[in-house]
Amino acid sequence: MSSTWGDTLKLSIFGESHGPAIGVVLDGLPAGEEIDMEQVLRFMDRRRPGKDPFSTPRKESDLPRVLSGVYQNRTTGTPLAAMIQNSDTHSGDYSELASVARPSHGDFTGFIRYHGFNDPRGGGHFSGRLTAPLVFAGALAIQMLERRGIYTGAHLASVAEVADRRFSPVSLSKEELLSPGQKAFPVLEDKAGEEMRERIETARMDRDSVGGTVECGVIGLPAGVGSPMFGGVENVLSSILFGIPAVKGVEFGLGFEGSRLTGSQYNDSFCLKNGEICTATNHHGGILGGITSGMPLLFSVAFKPTPSISQPQQTVDFISRTPKELVIKGRHDPCVVPRAVPCVEAAAALGVLSLLLDGVGGGFDR
Amino acid sequence: MSSTWGDTLKLSIFGESHGPAIGVVLDGLPAGEEIDMEQVLRFMDRRRPGKDPFSTPRKESDLPRVLSGVYQNRTTGTPLAAMIQNSDTHSGDYSELASVARPSHGDFTGFIRYHGFNDPRGGGHFSGRLTAPLVFAGALAIQMLERRGIYTGAHLASVAEVADRRFSPVSLSKEELLSPGQKAFPVLEDKAGEEMRERIETARMDRDSVGGTVECGVIGLPAGVGSPMFGGVENVLSSILFGIPAVKGVEFGLGFEGSRLTGSQYNDSFCLKNGEICTATNHHGGILGGITSGMPLLFSVAFKPTPSISQPQQTVDFISRTPKELVIKGRHDPCVVPRAVPCVEAAAALGVLSLLLDGVGGGFDR
Amino acid sequence: MSSTWGDTLKLSIFGESHGPAIGVVLDGLPAGEEIDMEQVLRFMDRRRPGKDPFSTPRKESDLPRVLSGVYQNRTTGTPLAAMIQNSDTHSGDYSELASVARPSHGDFTGFIRYHGFNDPRGGGHFSGRLTAPLVFAGALAIQMLERRGIYTGAHLASVAEVADRRFSPVSLSKEELLSPGQKAFPVLEDKAGEEMRERIETARMDRDSVGGTVECGVIGLPAGVGSPMFGGVENVLSSILFGIPAVKGVEFGLGFEGSRLTGSQYNDSFCLKNGEICTATNHHGGILGGITSGMPLLFSVAFKPTPSISQPQQTVDFISRTPKELVIKGRHDPCVVPRAVPCVEAAAALGVLSLLLDGVGGGFDR
Amino acid sequence: MSSTWGDTLKLSIFGESHGPAIGVVLDGLPAGEEIDMEQVLRFMDRRRPGKDPFSTPRKESDLPRVLSGVYQNRTTGTPLAAMIQNSDTHSGDYSELASVARPSHGDFTGFIRYHGFNDPRGGGHFSGRLTAPLVFAGALAIQMLERRGIYTGAHLASVAEVADRRFSPVSLSKEELLSPGQKAFPVLEDKAGEEMRERIETARMDRDSVGGTVECGVIGLPAGVGSPMFGGVENVLSSILFGIPAVKGVEFGLGFEGSRLTGSQYNDSFCLKNGEICTATNHHGGILGGITSGMPLLFSVAFKPTPSISQPQQTVDFISRTPKELVIKGRHDPCVVPRAVPCVEAAAALGVLSLLLDGVGGGFDR
Repeated sequence: MSSTWGDTLKLSIFGESHGPAIGVVLDGLPAGEEIDMEQVLRFMDRRRPGKDPFSTPRKESDLPRVLSGVYQNRTTGTPLAAMIQNSDTHSGDYSELASVARPSHGDFTGFIRYHGFNDPRGGGHFSGRLTAPLVFAGALAIQMLERRGIYTGAHLASVAEVADRRFSPVSLSKEELLSPGQKAFPVLEDKAGEEMRERIETARMDRDSVGGTVECGVIGLPAGVGSPMFGGVENVLSSILFGIPAVKGVEFGLGFEGSRLTGSQYNDSFCLKNGEICTATNHHGGILGGITSGMPLLFSVAFKPTPSISQPQQTVDFISRTPKELVIKGRHDPCVVPRAVPCVEAAAALGVLSLLLDGVGGGFDR
Repeated sequence: MSSTWGDTLKLSIFGESHGPAIGVVLDGLPAGEEIDMEQVLRFMDRRRPGKDPFSTPRKESDLPRVLSGVYQNRTTGTPLAAMIQNSDTHSGDYSELASVARPSHGDFTGFIRYHGFNDPRGGGHFSGRLTAPLVFAGALAIQMLERRGIYTGAHLASVAEVADRRFSPVSLSKEELLSPGQKAFPVLEDKAGEEMRERIETARMDRDSVGGTVECGVIGLPAGVGSPMFGGVENVLSSILFGIPAVKGVEFGLGFEGSRLTGSQYNDSFCLKNGEICTATNHHGGILGGITSGMPLLFSVAFKPTPSISQPQQTVDFISRTPKELVIKGRHDPCVVPRAVPCVEAAAALGVLSLLLDGVGGGFDR
Repeated sequence: MSSTWGDTLKLSIFGESHGPAIGVVLDGLPAGEEIDMEQVLRFMDRRRPGKDPFSTPRKESDLPRVLSGVYQNRTTGTPLAAMIQNSDTHSGDYSELASVARPSHGDFTGFIRYHGFNDPRGGGHFSGRLTAPLVFAGALAIQMLERRGIYTGAHLASVAEVADRRFSPVSLSKEELLSPGQKAFPVLEDKAGEEMRERIETARMDRDSVGGTVECGVIGLPAGVGSPMFGGVENVLSSILFGIPAVKGVEFGLGFEGSRLTGSQYNDSFCLKNGEICTATNHHGGILGGITSGMPLLFSVAFKPTPSISQPQQTVDFISRTPKELVIKGRHDPCVVPRAVPCVEAAAALGVLSLLLDGVGGGFDR
Repeated sequence: MSSTWGDTLKLSIFGESHGPAIGVVLDGLPAGEEIDMEQVLRFMDRRRPGKDPFSTPRKESDLPRVLSGVYQNRTTGTPLAAMIQNSDTHSGDYSELASVARPSHGDFTGFIRYHGFNDPRGGGHFSGRLTAPLVFAGALAIQMLERRGIYTGAHLASVAEVADRRFSPVSLSKEELLSPGQKAFPVLEDKAGEEMRERIETARMDRDSVGGTVECGVIGLPAGVGSPMFGGVENVLSSILFGIPAVKGVEFGLGFEGSRLTGSQYNDSFCLKNGEICTATNHHGGILGGITSGMPLLFSVAFKPTPSISQPQQTVDFISRTPKELVIKGRHDPCVVPRAVPCVEAAAALGVLSLLLDGVGGGFDR
């Protein structure tokens, strides 16, 4: 299986980059949830290519068409399906790549996995375009969560070696959390954003690309969501986050940095604030024993550099099994990470909604 | 749900630290696989507490008793169940902690999640002891994989700020991969191991603890295992790895470090070696598009410092909702990461076996 | 969840009777399978309403549009999605029914289940129209099975008290199995078919409806497919068959009739035929211990009478909670069972394909 | 997979008839549920062999030992595991059968499925003894349901051609529902029970066996539980019921008999009783569109005759592939159906509990 996720809430994503359409089916949504389609489209716009000079100029409508599961503007509770037509496709640009493995892409592994039958045009089902239905689904989840006081936000935490500051781990407010999403360039500190744009522009000039990281936060989550062992919040979120192309690492709270500390530095003291149990610091990222503590849920995701660069690269033709020099044509996004920010938010919201819908451990108030 | 993992191969772990027994049921194993129980026990010994001065001196047998699924020393193909009796338990040591949240532990979140009914003794189902059945299950998986030329190994990549060298990413041999597991202290470079032991001893003297990282490798895997999106090797492995207590981060290949590179630095050129397609470098950690490339599978796991330290800590009683100062009694392991190395190998082997058993994408040769 | 089925092969059906479209996503199909779309459409035609005077005259195109998962006329191995536009809908016909529970329909239970938010028009997601994507998916499965010498067929075994003869349980040939599907009225004995049509016509004259049963067979299946307990062929098939609206019973082999026999009458002797192990009779319907025996797989499905009849019926308005007399307007199919025959075949083929794709117990030869 | 069932509530059954032990793990139970172990044992006693002259005289303790998931006599919410030691095993009785296929048993199909590696002693994992952990698990589910006013009961509806009367479909009371379970022979009408015992005794005298049916009811269920299509109550219940050995048919409400009626005969009128919406008759068995209607849930299960009879039978040796005459030694139960009554109740209770624990469609009041 590849593109189906979840137990209580099931997500099934379909489509190829240059096929007739891409889309998603969501089974298990609560009934009666109002859909603000304007807000959905604004959210989807954040990952849309071609919206500013720093992303690929490919134009496409990306307008999702809801096929089922919504009646009188509310979820019916039965499966919600949506499709996005593919229009602006120039398969010709890709045809000669069909058997030349683009380094860092899934061309070769997909060819082997599917015995040569997968659709190679534009990356096929491996394309970053497949995040559009994920972002659509996440936009719905975000609305359902916000209605219950749970907010999801993310920002570009770094591009190459240039870093934004981190979310306030203890006192993260709705304003701070949502502010990056309201900017053209999703950072907390605009000065850092300026440097990042310059770093991306340099990469473009070098016909190169850069990677980066996204930090995501969820606030308003009650304590007690999730389960020990394989039902933990970390397990659930990572199982969806690694579904975003180019993600190569996920860490919660201090993550890898925390592995270098001592227990006395790392441990978060419990304390009382207005009668509520909380922690004085939040190195644990809001999850203890796989279960939410009531503190802000915080995690970071590492993206590798955009694989497509226009410098000449050494590779092989995997059908003729001969060496090739490859120069990838066309204009490519030198850094996909700004556009990946809403993808991370979407995945987080879907993971959190799924955990809340779980009848026993959840707390999804109808 | 909490403790059930997998689709094709299902793993169900049960037990509480101070209950009658812990154990595991494995459903979906191939039939006819010979079990070398001596090798299983040697592998389990590597996570056993009390085996050397650097781990907790708690004694216990940890001998698994196979209840089903093995006949004439071979797997029957029907569910394999095994239990490990709990014996050396002093519940008295923990009773006063029942409502005092140990910082960085799951006491408080488990109490909320289970409405106060979970077994609090020794961490209950949240205890690190629950990794014993995971390691048992992994030992079986390792044997099934080795029979097919697939080897799994791991080493302590760092303790606090002290680091071992990394596995050779391109030319990782069976000898290099398995060597750390044959040592009392599972590192590649004994000098680094010496420093790590000193660092742990310092933590013990300070009544403190330290965290660390484990690097794991799998060699011999064919290209083409795994699926795009949510069925990727990264998704499958992270969904089981975060089931190991104290894991707070997982990264594949260069992971977070790779997010700081450019595409021209990061991209792995494809080349031909003895007619086989491979990559000249292995920054991708053996996974492209969620699917194995045939290169060594490499990933790292971050462990937070052992939560139990004997320094006084500020916390709250979550029943009376009053502040408390807590001094955790008893001797605790100042660094669990050396013992976590076989846990990571076990999880990796179970994840890989599961992917191979998948009928379409797999290649599990019977 | 409602409309997602399967583990190895995942089926996700979406849509409402009067919404924009209905459709299906199939995740986990083997790659490289050629699609004969002509054959798919002919198979779908068999459930199409309005194709003869004995079914409802509602016209609709029912042409599925493949959105993904097929490239150069072969399955890619990534999710295959298809949609069928809804066109010929007269919601007005149904609007007054919105809160008047039609007896034997899911109006009332759907209203309660979805807190009043489900789409009530034409039965919404509960409509028999949702079997169109099931039949489409089944048509693909049938082609993949036939390519491997596995054939699926079914016939109308009874309408009200009028019965067709049964499939030959031991020596069922491909010709006998497939012959009912090639007729306008899917029976083995045309004389029985004639009586059934008369019985249906009588029901129509009476403004009434009738139920019936469908017998289904699968031949060419090797022995050894399926698993004991919950992974049995009976469990898998019944879990999908009860997804067809109006199905109220499923039995394998002699089923309920067999419960009235003695062991000496029921037990099927094993014997050798051309060196192959088989049974002299086939009361077990090709399944022993949940696993195929290599004999024809045989089962029957009971359909209740079509709920919509135009006689006056006593019911309640479930919003105002007042009694109502209901006269259902419009023309309705007095017997859906002839059109349900391909639905049963489709469900059987999907169930069998799914069992074969299971890596361990299966035998799906690529 | 074979022996794992469920999504929200996961059941994993393990063991072989003559292995060290059999047992079950239940993951996803609600926390804080008190366990009345006396009642559990009384319920398990109902399926115990050897409790009266009409069942097999094999003695065994069948005492389940709870290994985890219960603390201070209440469920912890984490996995509940229990094992039952195997003691009274005479493998010698079966050894010569190892390669001689007992007609109607899973010997041959299990041998093929598991490539000859399954445990053949006493039927191995295919043995009816594996229903003991199912009944244990069901006993827990029954207690959790009863605490919420939901009662489960069943009776022997027929043995061969001898029939008990049916449960009152509309006004089924707790007393009527539970009365068969309180008798040594679980019928509604003792006169029918007397005839059934005679029929069984005749079968014994004839060295033969008989089959039968079990009718099961669940009352107190609210309307609105279950989902359309594959998430229906029928799908969920049949997927667990076919896990009981010898079950060959399942029907809900009038089932197969209903397929012979007209719509005007079958349709259940809706009416109001004390302001509540109900139906005047209950041909639908409490399920419409896959969802409970609030009326008694009623279904029947067909069991084939006990396969083991002591008359000579023709069969084959599936290793040497030669014909054999087989005379099964030892005393065997000429009718397992009386002992299967609590198995059906257990499966029903687990199915219903699982549906109620589903966060969206359920109504499990904590």
